[in-house]
Amino acid sequence: MKPNSRPSAGRLLYAQSGGVTAVINATAAGVIEAARARGVPVYAARSGILGALHEELIDTGKESKAAIAALRHTPGGAFGSCRYKLKSLEAHRAEYERLIEVFRAHQIRWFLYNGGNDSADTALKISQLGKSMGYDIRCIGVPKTVDNDLAVTDCCPGFGSVAKYTAVSTLEASLDVASMAETSTKVFILEVMGRHAGWIAAAAGLAGEGADAAPHLILFPERVFDEAAFLAKVKATVERVGWCTVVASEGVRDRDGRFLAEAGTRDAFGHAQLGGVAPVLAALVKQKLGYKYHWALPDYLQRSARHLASRTDADQAYAVGQAAVKYALAGMNAVMPVIVRTADAPYRWKIEPARLDKIANREKKMPKHFISRDGFAITAAARRYLAPLIRGEAAPPYDKHGLPNYVQLKNVAVTQQLASFQES
Amino acid sequence: MKPNSRPSAGRLLYAQSGGVTAVINATAAGVIEAARARGVPVYAARSGILGALHEELIDTGKESKAAIAALRHTPGGAFGSCRYKLKSLEAHRAEYERLIEVFRAHQIRWFLYNGGNDSADTALKISQLGKSMGYDIRCIGVPKTVDNDLAVTDCCPGFGSVAKYTAVSTLEASLDVASMAETSTKVFILEVMGRHAGWIAAAAGLAGEGADAAPHLILFPERVFDEAAFLAKVKATVERVGWCTVVASEGVRDRDGRFLAEAGTRDAFGHAQLGGVAPVLAALVKQKLGYKYHWALPDYLQRSARHLASRTDADQAYAVGQAAVKYALAGMNAVMPVIVRTADAPYRWKIEPARLDKIANREKKMPKHFISRDGFAITAAARRYLAPLIRGEAAPPYDKHGLPNYVQLKNVAVTQQLASFQES
Repeated sequence: MKPNSRPSAGRLLYAQSGGVTAVINATAAGVIEAARARGVPVYAARSGILGALHEELIDTGKESKAAIAALRHTPGGAFGSCRYKLKSLEAHRAEYERLIEVFRAHQIRWFLYNGGNDSADTALKISQLGKSMGYDIRCIGVPKTVDNDLAVTDCCPGFGSVAKYTAVSTLEASLDVASMAETSTKVFILEVMGRHAGWIAAAAGLAGEGADAAPHLILFPERVFDEAAFLAKVKATVERVGWCTVVASEGVRDRDGRFLAEAGTRDAFGHAQLGGVAPVLAALVKQKLGYKYHWALPDYLQRSARHLASRTDADQAYAVGQAAVKYALAGMNAVMPVIVRTADAPYRWKIEPARLDKIANREKKMPKHFISRDGFAITAAARRYLAPLIRGEAAPPYDKHGLPNYVQLKNVAVTQQLASFQES
Repeated sequence: MKPNSRPSAGRLLYAQSGGVTAVINATAAGVIEAARARGVPVYAARSGILGALHEELIDTGKESKAAIAALRHTPGGAFGSCRYKLKSLEAHRAEYERLIEVFRAHQIRWFLYNGGNDSADTALKISQLGKSMGYDIRCIGVPKTVDNDLAVTDCCPGFGSVAKYTAVSTLEASLDVASMAETSTKVFILEVMGRHAGWIAAAAGLAGEGADAAPHLILFPERVFDEAAFLAKVKATVERVGWCTVVASEGVRDRDGRFLAEAGTRDAFGHAQLGGVAPVLAALVKQKLGYKYHWALPDYLQRSARHLASRTDADQAYAVGQAAVKYALAGMNAVMPVIVRTADAPYRWKIEPARLDKIANREKKMPKHFISRDGFAITAAARRYLAPLIRGEAAPPYDKHGLPNYVQLKNVAVTQQLASFQES
């Protein structure tokens, strides 16, 4: 078979990679429904690329139409995800040979890898196997990350929903703080994800507009933490408004490049306490300004809150899944369906293929002009960019017990045909 | 005027007290709409009883019908709340005399105080002023607390919504952890409110049923923390299920009665770090079992999450507000409208008046038979009690920007007629 001809038969393999999101399963639904519509059977790899290496495959054909449709409103990763990066072809040829062996054993002709920039790199490497190893495989990267840091695409499926969660939570908690400020909490600090890029923290800015509206300060990893300026602005806000809401990226660093989260707290055993820039800031506010504080760290709650998903995000997540199947079956290789914004107001978008080598291993930071001069707020340009991404609601159906009706797939294993494999 | 006759004219004063909830404003809507329907004008005290003492009153008559209706879906305390407990009549007679002075100046004939057990005590004291100070005031306590620890009433408005938030968040985060456990986080710890009573932590148990379903462990303040038993169960769960979700009350204590949250972490300045039992447990899991962990501490997010309110809770919050007005105008005094459960399945409830002296300063703990023998789960009896309280959704309307359409009242101040007052 010629490497560039469209395989006339075979299966499509789909896998989820990296941190999961509220809508990655919507992408899975898009993939499976599009493939089913074209008569192409879909296997899913259990726990991302690891499932492919270990021949732990799931036959999605055993799932009902209703179960696959329910993926569209179920958070988490229905087939399991993983944090595992394939090394170079030169360094770990055995792993690539194993993948080809598994693909061949199960007639996998199309591989769709759903993840962030590391996963795009993996997808790119696999897309090149056809030439170097003589097996005809088409590989499509499918975008996903709450960090919103993928290159080329205007935004990343998963981000809009965590952005909406962050904006709504900031608004709600601030109403609470405002009520209590007279005799109780004056400063509230919300810590959000974002180790390298402040996209999620920026989204909190959508909760309100104007100097007196919460959040009053946003701390970005893109800006060095300036303790004096921070304390001065918190103090001025409390004196003017009566209270103050701060939203901080977990990745905020000091002048020496150290994470604030690590600089501060020690656990009971004297180890540096990770994942807590909020308590460090709270202690600072208490010590230097004397204000009563509260802080919150929603952690996984923020990226799994499917109950509060953005409609824009849920729609885009589904659309990239559908497009990925279309591209794969059309014979495309080494591309990713990306979101192209064609208008801000009214917001319009479309899906286009982009080359994986333009995306793999790159990281999109917040543009400088999205952060205000004082470093504590978002600009009008950031607001224009972010606003459409949290628009619209996509509530899941609820059952009679008052819980969202999330689906649990059967995940029927495909019979293994190969000897076991130990990754290096 | 005879103390027991119904005042023929006058105003009703409403005030919010203690920590606010997702639905305390629904109670305010119930109060104001019921009073308006009977032609009785309503003032609200700014920041709870402090507003009454300082004659900082708000004329709710200046708010539109739509604004009052929107309170029904707006979290926080629309008029401000406070943490301030009136001392005994003997100790602080001046404060009581001041209250009467303010009531008299503004023709306040009915006072409705919306809060927890401390507030019920304040309401009880004020209800007795009619006799002791010769001013005819009827005082009704109106229940509110996320802690669910008020006596007599079957449940407390505010609790059902934080219970639903906790159950849904536990479910969602657990789907996330399950996806990642193969190569990443094995143990997830969610810290919830509950200093003295484990009601909120218990509600997490509604997220799933059976030994393998999350949450796998719940830690209650009612049970002494047993480190060995905790670690053994976490280990067994990870080995059996692949991952483990723990939900911990902030008020968990060790054998010496110390809060775990205080026993553990120190901030950058060496101070005990409050409000963090989750990081202490996480450090323990890491040190003793070696598992990768994540932890979350939603803090105010849990009690202000009106976007995820329970329909049962929102309805009950509104109903107690309406009933309080009915009782007040009927000439009742020193009572609280409480929720009476008349059936579990199908769940039925009604509102009845209960004597404030049976409620003030009492605290309802979780019944012993609601906690499993090993101390880490809820029983079937707890499930029967809790299940109806999170049932039904009551989503707020959203605006075109994708945010809940929460109302900001005008809060027009009533002209002051008295000299200023300094509370003791």
